[in-house]
Amino acid sequence: MTTTTMTTNETEPTTALPVRRALPGFHWEGVDTLRYKDDGATPFRDVTRQVLFQLPELHCEWRYFEVAPGGHSTLETHQHAHAVMILRGRGRCLVDDRIHAVAERDLVTVPPNAWHQFRADDDAPLGFLCLVNHDRDRPRLPLPEDLDRLGRDPEIAAFIRTAS
Amino acid sequence: MTTTTMTTNETEPTTALPVRRALPGFHWEGVDTLRYKDDGATPFRDVTRQVLFQLPELHCEWRYFEVAPGGHSTLETHQHAHAVMILRGRGRCLVDDRIHAVAERDLVTVPPNAWHQFRADDDAPLGFLCLVNHDRDRPRLPLPEDLDRLGRDPEIAAFIRTAS
Repeated sequence: MTTTTMTTNETEPTTALPVRRALPGFHWEGVDTLRYKDDGATPFRDVTRQVLFQLPELHCEWRYFEVAPGGHSTLETHQHAHAVMILRGRGRCLVDDRIHAVAERDLVTVPPNAWHQFRADDDAPLGFLCLVNHDRDRPRLPLPEDLDRLGRDPEIAAFIRTAS
Repeated sequence: MTTTTMTTNETEPTTALPVRRALPGFHWEGVDTLRYKDDGATPFRDVTRQVLFQLPELHCEWRYFEVAPGGHSTLETHQHAHAVMILRGRGRCLVDDRIHAVAERDLVTVPPNAWHQFRADDDAPLGFLCLVNHDRDRPRLPLPEDLDRLGRDPEIAAFIRTAS
């Protein structure tokens, strides 16, 4: 089944199909477009999630996230790492204590325990592939003391978004 | 160091850099362009390899392979799986007992123990992202009896390439 509507019902990708075609608008055959986060309490704006591969043999999940123009992912940290390739559009990302402009095919490494957030530019989406371990810890949201520390850098203070 | 020349000296990607820029021609900052196979005995034609991510935390390697127009990867099988996204151009791939035309952003699942081979069209390269476990078995090349069995399908017999 192919759907491009957003749903909160995550389904396993159809791994039985050896080839799943790209569809217009950065969607794929047999891949549902999901809410970025399901918990309803995590702040983000205009982000979708598609799980492209969930092969048990690989111990990894390969996802595609897309942040709409002006939107942002959640400012968070966790013990697991991310390997990211920008696939569509452009924006900026915070990794640790630096903000980077990113565009198509740029590679981003989010090491363990690094604060990170992705923001799309106001006039472009930011779509990116994100590789993550299947077994991983839950992200941690910033506490007031984390925001105090991050906000000592005026560039970071102006960049981070902590509300939906 | 950035180099776009082919070398057999594989270097670790610079994981210290949080962002590595895309360079023209499907190359990346700090990523060497390598021979597809180093053993000198495996048949393939006009394929390069770039290791984009080798994060120990992820237990996976995320590579980019590019097959030049008319070229082909090795016909092989192994116990480990591949998750593939076509990133550039078009071509065809054998997975198990079927040949599929593939183009940009199509997803290909190579399950364990499936014979597989990628061929670029004659007038286009075929570049693809390929995710694989860091710890994996060595590929197995076809024996005469494997080729006999594969070749019973005339479409597969005409597709497969077993010489460089």
